[in-house]
Amino acid sequence: MEQFEQKIRESFSRQSFMRTLVATMTNVSRGSLEIRFPFSPQLAQQNGFIHAGAITSIMDSACGYAAMTLAAEDADVLSVEFKVNLLAPALGDSFVARAQVKRQGRTLTICAADAFAIQSGEEKLIATMLATMINIIPSEPKR
Amino acid sequence: MEQFEQKIRESFSRQSFMRTLVATMTNVSRGSLEIRFPFSPQLAQQNGFIHAGAITSIMDSACGYAAMTLAAEDADVLSVEFKVNLLAPALGDSFVARAQVKRQGRTLTICAADAFAIQSGEEKLIATMLATMINIIPSEPKR
Amino acid sequence: MEQFEQKIRESFSRQSFMRTLVATMTNVSRGSLEIRFPFSPQLAQQNGFIHAGAITSIMDSACGYAAMTLAAEDADVLSVEFKVNLLAPALGDSFVARAQVKRQGRTLTICAADAFAIQSGEEKLIATMLATMINIIPSEPKR
Amino acid sequence: MEQFEQKIRESFSRQSFMRTLVATMTNVSRGSLEIRFPFSPQLAQQNGFIHAGAITSIMDSACGYAAMTLAAEDADVLSVEFKVNLLAPALGDSFVARAQVKRQGRTLTICAADAFAIQSGEEKLIATMLATMINIIPSEPKR
Repeated sequence: MEQFEQKIRESFSRQSFMRTLVATMTNVSRGSLEIRFPFSPQLAQQNGFIHAGAITSIMDSACGYAAMTLAAEDADVLSVEFKVNLLAPALGDSFVARAQVKRQGRTLTICAADAFAIQSGEEKLIATMLATMINIIPSEPKR
Repeated sequence: MEQFEQKIRESFSRQSFMRTLVATMTNVSRGSLEIRFPFSPQLAQQNGFIHAGAITSIMDSACGYAAMTLAAEDADVLSVEFKVNLLAPALGDSFVARAQVKRQGRTLTICAADAFAIQSGEEKLIATMLATMINIIPSEPKR
Repeated sequence: MEQFEQKIRESFSRQSFMRTLVATMTNVSRGSLEIRFPFSPQLAQQNGFIHAGAITSIMDSACGYAAMTLAAEDADVLSVEFKVNLLAPALGDSFVARAQVKRQGRTLTICAADAFAIQSGEEKLIATMLATMINIIPSEPKR
Repeated sequence: MEQFEQKIRESFSRQSFMRTLVATMTNVSRGSLEIRFPFSPQLAQQNGFIHAGAITSIMDSACGYAAMTLAAEDADVLSVEFKVNLLAPALGDSFVARAQVKRQGRTLTICAADAFAIQSGEEKLIATMLATMINIIPSEPKR
């Protein structure tokens, strides 16, 4: 495992909210990242679909860690802002968020993520995110 | 309790994700709504702050139910999209999201929400949301 | 020229703001659309780059007309909301916005657009948009 | 006139796109800013309303200069991203954008703006923006 992946998996393991969602990181590459979780009735909104906030959570973490795959070694990454469009009800056996870096800067990294519901092996696009991440270098706090 | 509040509290009680966050609805008025939850280590990101996704979740539900306070009696409300700016680390004893309807339409309702961290009784603005909600009338599905 | 293209070109010709930007529609296909304009010092911000608002304008029109390529024949399309990330200074000989429909619904259509600066024939990504459009059917005003 | 206002008015005067819109800056205070323009048929979309891109342009400039009222003396301000909700048709004799700083940081400043159409002296809310601005210090380019 490369060093950047190790750093990211270690940080992810400290995100206890990801454990609460039973989320796992299923791909870590330079510039792209994937997080998924299984359906759970504990994540539902009023109609039994998965709550938009839970889907947003894995898209946000996926965007942040996608940015981190390209950041300086000692940098932490925080979310500045994101925008999410909900495209279809979050109905499925499991859910996956795939994030990609759209533009990498020294301070800011722009990422896009799509989220899919998986039912009987078929993926359906349910949400999309456009996000801005900031690199925090320990010696020079910025935000 | 007025009928619209009853309908909203009943819908909220079906949002099991809100129970997972230990969130409660602390104000329901025509055009505005408040949801809060206490700090829990199970909602944290890598630095021990509350995950942006958890804060987003209560802002999203607060916006949706704020829209519902003004919607037709038999309408359900779904999130079309939202944009969130994270303004400060989510560090506190508890967290509150306050949503307000910015413009009510027949089909779409635009809402704004602010989220605050509360520490030793003092509130600090930590995030802000601008969201679009859609009214779903059972007889005429729209999205 | 197909009927949907004719309708869109006729509507575009009524957007006098596009004439003010000297913008032209250079591609109209089912689900995708392209608008471009040449550099003009009259569209600049304080550093001589093209103003973000001018780039946003062609991305917005491109998203709206991309949605219209898939809408009912008598529908008009209006912008509900959009989010833009500015990725690099708008510096070039000309600028092009390319929009695609991401999800088409009966009432709402979600579109994404990228904007590029073209200099000496080379394209550089300068901005990206995620937008929500609403179909307005004359007999049933909705927004 | 205070020095920050002088600096902002000088920068605004270099935004030739604002002249193209016949826009003027009608208030400059610490943390808030106002820009307006009169109706002109040259700024219209297909139905004769003002194009969303023109309204966005004055909201964007208003947000940027609102951020600049609180920035370091030698800092320039650039737009990182913004999100706009269009709330009503832009129909009126003139249009005004009012921006306020929502949170000021060393690197990033978050601003909100509302835009109003003015008809027979009455203001109507037509759009709202939530924006992220970045402070650029000449000696330390950041974006």
